[in-house]
Amino acid sequence: MSVVDAVTLAVDAVGGDDSPATVLEGVTAALAADPSLRVLLVGPDDIVTPYAATQDRVEAIVASEIIGMDEHATAAVRAKKDSSIVVGARLVREGRAQGFFSAGNTGAMMAACTLVMGRIEGVSRPAIATVLPTAGSPVVLLDAGANADCKPEHLVQFAHMGAAYARTVLGVQIPRVGLLNIGEEPTKGSMLAQEAHALMLEGVPGFVGNVEGRDIPAGVVDVVVTDGFTGNVALKLMEGMSHVLLSQFKEALLSSPVNKMAAAVLKPALAKLRDRLDPESHGAAPLLGVDGLALIGHGTSGSRAVASALRVGATAVRGELVSRIAEALAAS
Amino acid sequence: MSVVDAVTLAVDAVGGDDSPATVLEGVTAALAADPSLRVLLVGPDDIVTPYAATQDRVEAIVASEIIGMDEHATAAVRAKKDSSIVVGARLVREGRAQGFFSAGNTGAMMAACTLVMGRIEGVSRPAIATVLPTAGSPVVLLDAGANADCKPEHLVQFAHMGAAYARTVLGVQIPRVGLLNIGEEPTKGSMLAQEAHALMLEGVPGFVGNVEGRDIPAGVVDVVVTDGFTGNVALKLMEGMSHVLLSQFKEALLSSPVNKMAAAVLKPALAKLRDRLDPESHGAAPLLGVDGLALIGHGTSGSRAVASALRVGATAVRGELVSRIAEALAAS
Repeated sequence: MSVVDAVTLAVDAVGGDDSPATVLEGVTAALAADPSLRVLLVGPDDIVTPYAATQDRVEAIVASEIIGMDEHATAAVRAKKDSSIVVGARLVREGRAQGFFSAGNTGAMMAACTLVMGRIEGVSRPAIATVLPTAGSPVVLLDAGANADCKPEHLVQFAHMGAAYARTVLGVQIPRVGLLNIGEEPTKGSMLAQEAHALMLEGVPGFVGNVEGRDIPAGVVDVVVTDGFTGNVALKLMEGMSHVLLSQFKEALLSSPVNKMAAAVLKPALAKLRDRLDPESHGAAPLLGVDGLALIGHGTSGSRAVASALRVGATAVRGELVSRIAEALAAS
Repeated sequence: MSVVDAVTLAVDAVGGDDSPATVLEGVTAALAADPSLRVLLVGPDDIVTPYAATQDRVEAIVASEIIGMDEHATAAVRAKKDSSIVVGARLVREGRAQGFFSAGNTGAMMAACTLVMGRIEGVSRPAIATVLPTAGSPVVLLDAGANADCKPEHLVQFAHMGAAYARTVLGVQIPRVGLLNIGEEPTKGSMLAQEAHALMLEGVPGFVGNVEGRDIPAGVVDVVVTDGFTGNVALKLMEGMSHVLLSQFKEALLSSPVNKMAAAVLKPALAKLRDRLDPESHGAAPLLGVDGLALIGHGTSGSRAVASALRVGATAVRGELVSRIAEALAAS
């Protein structure tokens, strides 16, 4: 049996639409699955203390404030120093936790983690990386929304960070990195894409050139690099397409009594497919480039998403993701 | 019975991967469906002349050159004055045809139609509009790839042109127009999106504000406006997702002998769904803003796509699309 390093993750008990219930269920499942995992559960006393009393490997960290889903991110982070999001980021900064997960206000998570943990040396812009299901192996797409306007050199840094993530967390030895563009040739696309292409050709190991929209779900590369505007549109479009296509498929299956009977037979196969396509099966999107592991959950995260976020977080800690990113950027 | 105006469309016989066969089949089907349609079939003598001899409402227009799918667009348009693409555009310019369809080299179609037909007064940048299937009614997405880099005022023009298309061709009385962005609030997104939002709020009738990636397949607006980089990524991503999801459904349905039997029952319902989702059911994407109707087909267009492109083209001519766009821009 292999020895697995102990990992301590901070978890925001009150982040996400259905928190704290889904978060606590997710933590319970993650602890059961990984005997070397410890959790610092951050949130109001009446939520975190009773739960910690029932679990050996959970410590309650009381935070008296909560940042709401719709609050202005940076203002809230500055004003609410004792919020679960700011306190969680501080636990990583102080070395008490090796990573922090929250499914709360995404903007506040970005702001708090960047301000409190600081950036890795050499990183201009931290970026959100999201792991998407494809017809082949999963693909890391970044930036998924942290930076709406980017310069070519930012995209080069995203490439290094995304490749480090694919190596460390997805176990891809030599990640193939593609630049999202609107044609295959280097001279195609926006000025940003053309300049980034030239820089990536010189400086990014594993760079395979431009990829197009259709190549993302096809899974032809391991890492897709783009600006945070295009990346966010692409991510939400994929979520929307999955949702619409699955409902229309369901509708077709239930469109007549005979179809319903046939659909009942197919239920297990279709449930498996739905799980495979679930964009939340990876659980959380890391904010890469900050000097610590920051895992941002979807506001709608269920307990399964929370558990898989913690599993991914532990893998990232054990693979020393933050050091690997720092090394990749120092070598570039 | 209503009287329908006669329409003459020029058609490139040698554009598209499977031309001329698919083009000729598509023309035959379109003529059968619309007794008031006439076609000027453009291409090599040995292809267009024999076909025209078999069809009452087809005139052969001999063009001795062909622009290949991979040729450099503007160079080819300048060099090959007697190519089917340049000749077809000229037929519209000279008033002999009211529109021109080609599934050939997209870049060459854009260049030839812009150069030969000219732009509608006031249009800075012609844009490609594509009609996408959604959970609700179809949505017009533009720019789908003509302009990788855009200014805010270009997006405002795209909004006017897209709304005119939705009115004229899709029959939407008051089209709802959305700006593709990465958040609902006006202050969200790239500098381009923020500035375009402010301009559209002032000057675009039916403007409903920002829409996000997931809103495209959900069908919450009639027109989605974005730059040609984001639009092209979104279009190809949707095509890729449809393709991957449908193959994975198919795989799930065929994963065991019992599933196969159930799938056989469901075949008609699923075929209907596939047709509904087919991004090519609209047949062609118009290049809006040029002073004439230019219809750009997908390189992979089959005969069904060609036929529906000609149906859409006839509708656009009868609705006086080009005049409607000119009026909308003059009033803005």
